[in-house]
Amino acid sequence: MKILNNVSYDGEKYSGFQIQKNDSTIQAELEKSLSQLYNRDISVIGASRTDSGVHALGQKFTFNVISSSIAIDKLPTAINARLPDDIVVTNSIIVDEYFHPRFDAKEKIYLYKILNTQYQNPILKNYVCHFKNKIDVKLMQKGAKYFIGTHDFLAFCSAGSSVKSTVRTIFDISIKEENGLIELEFRGDGFLYNMIRIIVGTLLDCGTNKILPQYIEEIIFSKDRHLAGKTAPAHALTLMDILY
Amino acid sequence: MKILNNVSYDGEKYSGFQIQKNDSTIQAELEKSLSQLYNRDISVIGASRTDSGVHALGQKFTFNVISSSIAIDKLPTAINARLPDDIVVTNSIIVDEYFHPRFDAKEKIYLYKILNTQYQNPILKNYVCHFKNKIDVKLMQKGAKYFIGTHDFLAFCSAGSSVKSTVRTIFDISIKEENGLIELEFRGDGFLYNMIRIIVGTLLDCGTNKILPQYIEEIIFSKDRHLAGKTAPAHALTLMDILY
Repeated sequence: MKILNNVSYDGEKYSGFQIQKNDSTIQAELEKSLSQLYNRDISVIGASRTDSGVHALGQKFTFNVISSSIAIDKLPTAINARLPDDIVVTNSIIVDEYFHPRFDAKEKIYLYKILNTQYQNPILKNYVCHFKNKIDVKLMQKGAKYFIGTHDFLAFCSAGSSVKSTVRTIFDISIKEENGLIELEFRGDGFLYNMIRIIVGTLLDCGTNKILPQYIEEIIFSKDRHLAGKTAPAHALTLMDILY
Repeated sequence: MKILNNVSYDGEKYSGFQIQKNDSTIQAELEKSLSQLYNRDISVIGASRTDSGVHALGQKFTFNVISSSIAIDKLPTAINARLPDDIVVTNSIIVDEYFHPRFDAKEKIYLYKILNTQYQNPILKNYVCHFKNKIDVKLMQKGAKYFIGTHDFLAFCSAGSSVKSTVRTIFDISIKEENGLIELEFRGDGFLYNMIRIIVGTLLDCGTNKILPQYIEEIIFSKDRHLAGKTAPAHALTLMDILY
């Protein structure tokens, strides 16, 4: 029996989703909780390898059990009872045995938050990238249009990735601003290692007049990481949802 | 020269605003920073004695200096350089020497957040009161109307307060809900010790059908703390602004 789950987490204290030796990760916490619950070793497959410090409200993962004595609607509460309070499973459903949370994903939705005010907001600080210099949101919106579509995003990928292809499709980047809080919503079929954070860094170069919006087309075409912007901080990024 | 400042803070690690022996408080941090900055003892007068754990975006305080070599628009940055990153001064202006941040306040605005969802949200958890059982927001709104106006709020005041009068005027309580997040905005000429948190606890009794909305009129009239609801948690309350 394969079970698909939704999990939310505050990524601050974790070295990302994926299990790593000697590091605290979301996957390790989930596997520990499930193994205690079912009294045998349980492995988890995550949909998205969120980076160290990245948060999630809509991460998905699956695991297999031969049979479960726990009713499926009571499962999140049973798993949560054995998790730290910065990780919360919010939904569990039974899926087909061939379902794969990563390969079957049709769309991933991420949200990046920039606080463009003179002073930091201490209540938001763990979830926003504070940027003091004035950002022109319209220029960011113009620049964002060049990312939409299917492109080779090699210039927007950090070294250390092991993917076969660096071609991805971005369906939409919507950028809105309210009281200095700029929210960038990314929708795509998948994102490379650090891709969203490098796109945000490049859009910040746009919004602060360091590059012209149309120059983004050239950066994409160049496939040269050095032409793109800096990698924006992880703690302002949240995985919002994954659609199947 | 008297200077009025706006300060924001995450109250989690502090025993409230007001200075206390052996406890970490916002006032103590502000006085330490200012005394370092001006190289002599500086005392601060706060507008509102926020409780332990309560946050602020719009707390005000004043202090006196004989003269300041720091330009007034550079003052927040100079004070912040000597403050922990969970306290941020966002504005400083010179005021009349007779101005008093507490006695001259015309209106105080507080926001209380309740997350009414089956599972906690790990990203919001430090700033919301998570409440699992279904709340009827319309019943809360009906109940809230009984608080509007000038009343003796003795039934909604914790012991330990040293105020002369327990009469206060509430101008408005607006309650809205979106995706399970219920926000209660309180506007009044002032609030007693724990008053907002006890009102929230009582409105929760309304919203969960433990009491009828019209019973609130009787609780106010009784002046009996035992008839009102529980004191809702501090960490979901934020002082938003003080108007003069």
